[in-house]
Amino acid sequence: MGVAASPVQQYLESLHAEFAGLDDGDVATYIPELGKADPSWFALCLVTVDGHAYLAGDSDQSFSIQSVSKPFVYGMALEDRGVDMVLERVGVEPTGDPFNSIAVDEVSNRPFNPMVNAGAIVTTGLVAGDDSDVQWARICAGFEAYTGRSLDLDTDVYLSELATGDRNRAIAYLMRNFGMLDGDVDSVLSLYFRQCSLLVTCRDLAVAAATLANGGVNPITRTRALPERNVEHVLSVMQTCGMYDYAGAWNYEVGLPAKSGVSGAVIAVLPGQLGIGVFSPPLDARGNSVRGIEVCRRLARDFALHPHRARGNAVDVVRRRYTGQGTRSTRVRSIQECDAIEERAHEIVVFELQGNVFFADAEQLIRQVLDGIGDARVVVLDGHRIGRINAPAITLLVSLAAVVATTHRVLVTAGFPADENGRIDLGATMAADLDSALEWWEESVLATAIAPAERAALPLASQELLRGVTGEQLDAIEAEVEIHELSIGDALAHEGDPSDCVYFLLSGRVSVQLSIHGRTAHRLAAFGPGVAVGELALLDESPRSADLIVEAPARIAALSVRDLDDLDAELPGLKATIYANLAHSLSERLRRANGHIRALEQ
Amino acid sequence: MGVAASPVQQYLESLHAEFAGLDDGDVATYIPELGKADPSWFALCLVTVDGHAYLAGDSDQSFSIQSVSKPFVYGMALEDRGVDMVLERVGVEPTGDPFNSIAVDEVSNRPFNPMVNAGAIVTTGLVAGDDSDVQWARICAGFEAYTGRSLDLDTDVYLSELATGDRNRAIAYLMRNFGMLDGDVDSVLSLYFRQCSLLVTCRDLAVAAATLANGGVNPITRTRALPERNVEHVLSVMQTCGMYDYAGAWNYEVGLPAKSGVSGAVIAVLPGQLGIGVFSPPLDARGNSVRGIEVCRRLARDFALHPHRARGNAVDVVRRRYTGQGTRSTRVRSIQECDAIEERAHEIVVFELQGNVFFADAEQLIRQVLDGIGDARVVVLDGHRIGRINAPAITLLVSLAAVVATTHRVLVTAGFPADENGRIDLGATMAADLDSALEWWEESVLATAIAPAERAALPLASQELLRGVTGEQLDAIEAEVEIHELSIGDALAHEGDPSDCVYFLLSGRVSVQLSIHGRTAHRLAAFGPGVAVGELALLDESPRSADLIVEAPARIAALSVRDLDDLDAELPGLKATIYANLAHSLSERLRRANGHIRALEQ
Repeated sequence: MGVAASPVQQYLESLHAEFAGLDDGDVATYIPELGKADPSWFALCLVTVDGHAYLAGDSDQSFSIQSVSKPFVYGMALEDRGVDMVLERVGVEPTGDPFNSIAVDEVSNRPFNPMVNAGAIVTTGLVAGDDSDVQWARICAGFEAYTGRSLDLDTDVYLSELATGDRNRAIAYLMRNFGMLDGDVDSVLSLYFRQCSLLVTCRDLAVAAATLANGGVNPITRTRALPERNVEHVLSVMQTCGMYDYAGAWNYEVGLPAKSGVSGAVIAVLPGQLGIGVFSPPLDARGNSVRGIEVCRRLARDFALHPHRARGNAVDVVRRRYTGQGTRSTRVRSIQECDAIEERAHEIVVFELQGNVFFADAEQLIRQVLDGIGDARVVVLDGHRIGRINAPAITLLVSLAAVVATTHRVLVTAGFPADENGRIDLGATMAADLDSALEWWEESVLATAIAPAERAALPLASQELLRGVTGEQLDAIEAEVEIHELSIGDALAHEGDPSDCVYFLLSGRVSVQLSIHGRTAHRLAAFGPGVAVGELALLDESPRSADLIVEAPARIAALSVRDLDDLDAELPGLKATIYANLAHSLSERLRRANGHIRALEQ
Repeated sequence: MGVAASPVQQYLESLHAEFAGLDDGDVATYIPELGKADPSWFALCLVTVDGHAYLAGDSDQSFSIQSVSKPFVYGMALEDRGVDMVLERVGVEPTGDPFNSIAVDEVSNRPFNPMVNAGAIVTTGLVAGDDSDVQWARICAGFEAYTGRSLDLDTDVYLSELATGDRNRAIAYLMRNFGMLDGDVDSVLSLYFRQCSLLVTCRDLAVAAATLANGGVNPITRTRALPERNVEHVLSVMQTCGMYDYAGAWNYEVGLPAKSGVSGAVIAVLPGQLGIGVFSPPLDARGNSVRGIEVCRRLARDFALHPHRARGNAVDVVRRRYTGQGTRSTRVRSIQECDAIEERAHEIVVFELQGNVFFADAEQLIRQVLDGIGDARVVVLDGHRIGRINAPAITLLVSLAAVVATTHRVLVTAGFPADENGRIDLGATMAADLDSALEWWEESVLATAIAPAERAALPLASQELLRGVTGEQLDAIEAEVEIHELSIGDALAHEGDPSDCVYFLLSGRVSVQLSIHGRTAHRLAAFGPGVAVGELALLDESPRSADLIVEAPARIAALSVRDLDDLDAELPGLKATIYANLAHSLSERLRRANGHIRALEQ
């Protein structure tokens, strides 16, 4: 990775080296094939939700997945049958019992939970499919989505489970006796034994755990393994039932939803962040991997991963709040227009949002908006930095828009992300982006502040760059300029053209656009009547750095720089006046730009 | 609040109205005083971690706290005795038993957990104090920190508990028989009954829950109620044991650490965000408030509060990454200096960090730094927007600084927050803020790019504003200017002074400072030799908008605007040249400012 080894990788390797010396526990022998595992096998993998894998030790050693399969198959059953039907057949209450407990909940007539064998057998039977071949194909495809690769069956382990699975057979028949399990017991058990005999690596399990951490999407293949709505259910049963009778101490010390299995694997999930996989066959008396537990405890302690660890508050949903004083659209306006807008700059307030917007964020935002509107008439929510916004937050913001409307103000959303159903509609005024929202507001201010006739067309005498020139000088310029009438979409100049004249905009609108790779144009600025475009030709002769495109039918007076030199020779002081006007306009724009920077850096 | 009612408040009120119609359950009667509660009492309170309270219904109705006291007293015992000692005396394993179970864990010789009566009685006995009066004072002070007010004892309830507490007496004697409980049984029980008889309101409980959500600090009074390290332990036992034998279903549907009590209260904690309190006396068969459970289920569903709900990834720890091309220090430099810096702008890369920095954030940051250094020689971590940074993250960043150093690069931290032990030291170069880090880097570039003599002092002929003036014009200016020699701290001009001259900086450094309320000065910009200061005097006569303060011994040539007008009359073209230079310099600064804005808006 990058220019040097990651300290995270180094840490994992030293952790691996340290715990390799921990020799407690015994390899499971309750089925003979498991007893063949090498007790020194030891792997430790972390996979992030953006798909980076840290691997230490025997991360590619294969072993049968055993009980670690249970939460994943539970997710498949939830997807295939729906939560209500699955809950009817399998409970979610933890028991203090070991994994192979024969106890079932006779009151509710279902096994206690899907993490003990009884519940897992019923769960496997719930996976969709008319016969066990179809069900098996569904289970294999399900695991492939989680791990990103097709898994092989360990036939020896499967046959060993089949041959020695009498306790599970007893559990299954007991459940059928109670009416908890339908269909052919042998066929369900065969499916369950095959599920437990799938060959995985520690890396596979960390990727699968990271898939749960990532809302059900495999962070490496980007394939969805599980509908997002079911992730919380799978993690919940892992949280309360994943570590059998070690659940309380695990939740106290580690706190992450987890699952262990008798082949020596432990997975743990840090939602939104990480999947963890540890593999080491020797087990403690409860059937959990000794190194697996100890490594997770240590990771949780060293990295402060406990989900209830006090974390301070999250990032504020409001990244910045500012009024019109702090910012403007990319429209370059005359000083007269700027002054008119500045005078009413307090009438608009912008809340720039960031991150994910869920309930608590929406709640915070609503308070900040209602407390922070002041005498603003227009409230813009700039959503271009929002990651995700969920349904409860949308509902609250729709109510906010309604409440704001009752105060005779306007809520404008700008650049909100789309959801599955297209653009999110809060019932407020929608703008494509913040720039459009600001320009829309500025135009609405100018519509009342400056007489329309005065804005529609301005003679040369009203040009900002020509303030203070004498009547004689103005007449001479008037005689020199070339008048162009242009239509929407016309190019006044292209990037790379020589910069040899300045354009006085008499009416219409021209924008400065940068086309990237000759394709989509990015609008850097737009100019209206009274303002000069391409005025940097007065300063140096480097070619035009962008396209000048007509946005509204425009009348333009072009003055070449050479003609201006000639005029100055005849009428001394003309250039000094024009350059002083130019410097004045630039210094105003620089002042506003610096104000904008300070606002952005707040 | 603000200009209108909050939609959150409206939602809670409609929820309250809806569930007021739910009439299931019965008021507890196992102690006679509880039976006097009005079954129609119903309150619903949310308190945010920034101290805002939403209240609906009978939020100020008093009732005895009962079992909701247990997690808070458990926190007091952890603080007074330490986690190890408390764990030795009270386990953390959930049981499927009801609150008043007489069962204890005879294997580990302790009650199962502190949320059942047996464990709560032992916990109460562990609170610090030589006698029960001192212990009682400690408990009362503890609750006062959580609720923000001194609580009264409901003597009738206390006497009723004392008179009818035989089951608890049996539990206590049984535990003393097993050696689980020391001391005088009557005295511990009396303390426990008093604890349960403290009078609270639903608002109090929501504030106390919000205190747990807020890392142990009461969000309204800002008093610490519990050391931060113990918050996760209290929440963990609430998570696994807080709802008795309803724990599995609660975790599946609601998922928040919670506690209920027989007087009809339920609290739930959304760490980092919210405390929830619901009060309604009628109970279900398990002893949980019927409306309390239903309101929490509904809140969790409507607001998507389940902690395992897929949330997408958090806000990126790296808010922006940019090279020197994107930004500069506030030092205003000559075009020659700017060009020299621009040429090596790729040699510095800045990572602007945001939010809290914990393990997963540090991991992400490390990868982005190692992958994103490229050919930069200097890596700046701008920490001024970091909220909190925890110990594991600091450890990883210290390793990162060491790794970066091995590649012959420099890691610079700028504006990192202080922790309890003062400023955080990553073993990297530390700068007070980003501006200092950038200026330090720019100076190191210029030290090798431009001969020191050329940077130390520049004659008038080398002034940026005077480029292209004729020899005759320069001589005339030389004769008009007034030379000032100034020392560090001298003021060249003050805010409000008339703007009647421009200062050519021949050597030294001058900064533009804004003093706010005549106190701390904010440095807007700084200028070195070759650059003109106060040049806006050339554009208009409005008074100086900031102080000009000497930062390094300076030699300055002052030219008054009136003298320049006189010179231009004698030597035509002088002002046109100077104004063109000024416009050129302003347009360069505007170009850089616009680049900076685009970088900031990324």
